[in-house]
Amino acid sequence: MINSFIFNIFGGTGDLAKKKLLPALYNLYKKDMLPENFKVISIGRRNYTKNQYVNFLMEDTKFSSRDKQLDDFLEKITYYEMNFDDSSKYKDLDVLNKKLGEEIKGDNRVFYFATPPSYFEVISNNLSMYYKNNQKNHQRVLIEKPFGSDLKSAEYFNEQLEKAFDKNDIYRIDHYLGKEMIQNILTMRFTNQLFRNNWSKDSIDNIKIAISENIGVEERINYYDSVGALRDMVQNHLLQILSFLTLERPFEITTESLKKEKLNILKNLKTFTPDSIRSDVVFGQYDGYPVKSETETYVALKTEILTDKWKGVPIYLMTGKHMSEKKAEVLITFKKDTSKDCFFNNDNVENNLLAFKIQPTEGVYLRINSKVPGNNDVSTVSLDYCQTCNTNYSSPEAYEKLLFDCLNRDKTLFASWEEIKYSWTFIDSITKSCESRRKALLKYPRGVEDIKESTKLIGGGKWFLD
Amino acid sequence: MINSFIFNIFGGTGDLAKKKLLPALYNLYKKDMLPENFKVISIGRRNYTKNQYVNFLMEDTKFSSRDKQLDDFLEKITYYEMNFDDSSKYKDLDVLNKKLGEEIKGDNRVFYFATPPSYFEVISNNLSMYYKNNQKNHQRVLIEKPFGSDLKSAEYFNEQLEKAFDKNDIYRIDHYLGKEMIQNILTMRFTNQLFRNNWSKDSIDNIKIAISENIGVEERINYYDSVGALRDMVQNHLLQILSFLTLERPFEITTESLKKEKLNILKNLKTFTPDSIRSDVVFGQYDGYPVKSETETYVALKTEILTDKWKGVPIYLMTGKHMSEKKAEVLITFKKDTSKDCFFNNDNVENNLLAFKIQPTEGVYLRINSKVPGNNDVSTVSLDYCQTCNTNYSSPEAYEKLLFDCLNRDKTLFASWEEIKYSWTFIDSITKSCESRRKALLKYPRGVEDIKESTKLIGGGKWFLD
Repeated sequence: MINSFIFNIFGGTGDLAKKKLLPALYNLYKKDMLPENFKVISIGRRNYTKNQYVNFLMEDTKFSSRDKQLDDFLEKITYYEMNFDDSSKYKDLDVLNKKLGEEIKGDNRVFYFATPPSYFEVISNNLSMYYKNNQKNHQRVLIEKPFGSDLKSAEYFNEQLEKAFDKNDIYRIDHYLGKEMIQNILTMRFTNQLFRNNWSKDSIDNIKIAISENIGVEERINYYDSVGALRDMVQNHLLQILSFLTLERPFEITTESLKKEKLNILKNLKTFTPDSIRSDVVFGQYDGYPVKSETETYVALKTEILTDKWKGVPIYLMTGKHMSEKKAEVLITFKKDTSKDCFFNNDNVENNLLAFKIQPTEGVYLRINSKVPGNNDVSTVSLDYCQTCNTNYSSPEAYEKLLFDCLNRDKTLFASWEEIKYSWTFIDSITKSCESRRKALLKYPRGVEDIKESTKLIGGGKWFLD
Repeated sequence: MINSFIFNIFGGTGDLAKKKLLPALYNLYKKDMLPENFKVISIGRRNYTKNQYVNFLMEDTKFSSRDKQLDDFLEKITYYEMNFDDSSKYKDLDVLNKKLGEEIKGDNRVFYFATPPSYFEVISNNLSMYYKNNQKNHQRVLIEKPFGSDLKSAEYFNEQLEKAFDKNDIYRIDHYLGKEMIQNILTMRFTNQLFRNNWSKDSIDNIKIAISENIGVEERINYYDSVGALRDMVQNHLLQILSFLTLERPFEITTESLKKEKLNILKNLKTFTPDSIRSDVVFGQYDGYPVKSETETYVALKTEILTDKWKGVPIYLMTGKHMSEKKAEVLITFKKDTSKDCFFNNDNVENNLLAFKIQPTEGVYLRINSKVPGNNDVSTVSLDYCQTCNTNYSSPEAYEKLLFDCLNRDKTLFASWEEIKYSWTFIDSITKSCESRRKALLKYPRGVEDIKESTKLIGGGKWFLD
């Protein structure tokens, strides 16, 4: 385990820092998963005293009950006021890091880019003056999404970043990979004979990955309107989940080999043509979207992986805002035997279905065919495992896992530059097409279960179990 | 559906008639699964009036609440007193059948051999005088177990039977095949992609089939002591279940093709040698067995099927009396990946396990590996479907299904002569061996979970889920 560190958060007064990062650090602290010697520097533009900053944090319910342990944790935080584009302040920040470094007898520095993406470059360039080379292996840079807005901007930013920092020190966050059930996909796939032998185009009929939200863009409208659902959710979370679901089991499961196999999936994703955009992509925008624009708040699409193992298996992705539920799920539909025989009532035989329930409930669900008692009919029965139904159980927050891994230099659950590159290639094949801009943006009422055109895309049925 | 019938029960005052056959017929009647026109002739040695016979039946709780429907059913029953070896009475029985046949305007006759097996031959021979040939396709003969006591006696009895009756009219009952979850084995196997692709030696590590009882031989001692667990339970129920579990899926699932595939399993069962009896069979007798004898009340054995598909997969059978629970279950243990890698804690990876719960609970249980929340460990989770936990649900009694199928000439769930033949070949390879007679009969206390030597035979672990 790392023996000491200073955790710098650019964007210390933002929602991410307040609601996710600091609570995650605090939870790790409470679980004794952090070294005794660490400090936090929350960097923000607001003119806060330390006390004011603590009060700001205390607004969040995760910090609601003040006790000795919380006091000790808060004690470790320094608030540092600066404009991220004020180059002169970076020197003082370096001085502060050095001072705290002496206190904790260590020089590991973590820099978390939790600001709007427009600041990523300036922060990175300014930091590089103090941290390039002379701090090798003693720093980590954590970058929030979005990593660019298309392949070109991502490439540009990545170049800047890799000029400023050592490749190995860069951690590109996709917080979905910190979620329990996403990590469990690999465990489930690789430790269960029943699934392992059925994990290819020979056995799988289709794969659906869906993340719906029941709220809108709200105060994120300025950022969101320039991005849209495809770039905000599909480029990162949905494609990462897709790669976990379909990557080939490497001979040995290591961070590097998994990365290689993930990349092999993303490289082989079928990109879009004008024709396939017309037939295989659905864009939507909820009624009452705050500004008049062509930005999609809903997207559903059909793709496939052009490898021997997966060619021909439709993979459906969907994400939307202001839908009926906040939910994330993966549905694996297995093929069914279509041979008719007189013994079973085949009309009632359904495809086997395996679901990874990601949120809000975590669990696994399996649908199989069984005989109807008392006659020869077949009907489905449900084998259900609900992880979160366990009383006393609550999964660690995604960020806990990812911050812990980053501190301990485990890159398994972070996206590599190459993965991001091929993700953007896929996304660009839609966004850069004139066809895409011509395609109708379907208005949908708030609270819908799905958009009709999208239900049609998946051949009827649903994106979620219920 | 058959449009009328007369149901003759030899052994009308026996437990089987009272507790199983007549309640089963009554249930079918209540469910409207019998034609309006039918009669029952209960044939016994006791000097009962019809009223006395009805009172005798009413002792059974299944008939406890008397109402119009039950009265109508009881109205259809005639009690006929005779000694089964009194040839003169068979003519009168024929007359009675003819008379009732006129009443119901039909001549379908069913004869159920529900007597001690010592009467099977005399009944069959006497009946043949009246029913051979002239009643073709209008009669059915139902034979209870045991069908012989070894291959030779079974062959002899079968010859007698086939002389007396048309082959197609003979129904050899194995009431386990009437149980919901035994029938469900085929449905589960053949309608679920997940299982179908994992159903051979490549994926299955071993199969366990176990039936335990928590009572002893009680009043059946005279019969039982000459038979023992191997011939009372293994030759029929356990081998039939084994064949359902392992038979090849025929191109078309019909009664005939299933029979052929079952036969192919039983033919290819590995029989025993003196060596394998020593190493692979465990005999036990519970403490306080009523007579001093070498009859086993417990048997466990290990065999395999010598086909390309199954060779090398151990199949374990067990049955015993006076054990801790009344239970019947099938456990399919799948292979596990033994490759070590650094990503999962492989020491905790367990084999996938599929259980068919036959009785008292009916259901399916699946054990899979899943990630432990909060770290990278693996642990098993249970996916459980309990059919009988459904409120308002109770499975039809096994005999209901079998009587209904027999009335409607569906032989799918009856054992063919050839199946019985190869079952006895297998059993004889144990019972006819001197080795077997030399082998120690292990005494075991009543209420045990298992016998130590048998637990060792299966390589540790348990025969049942819990």
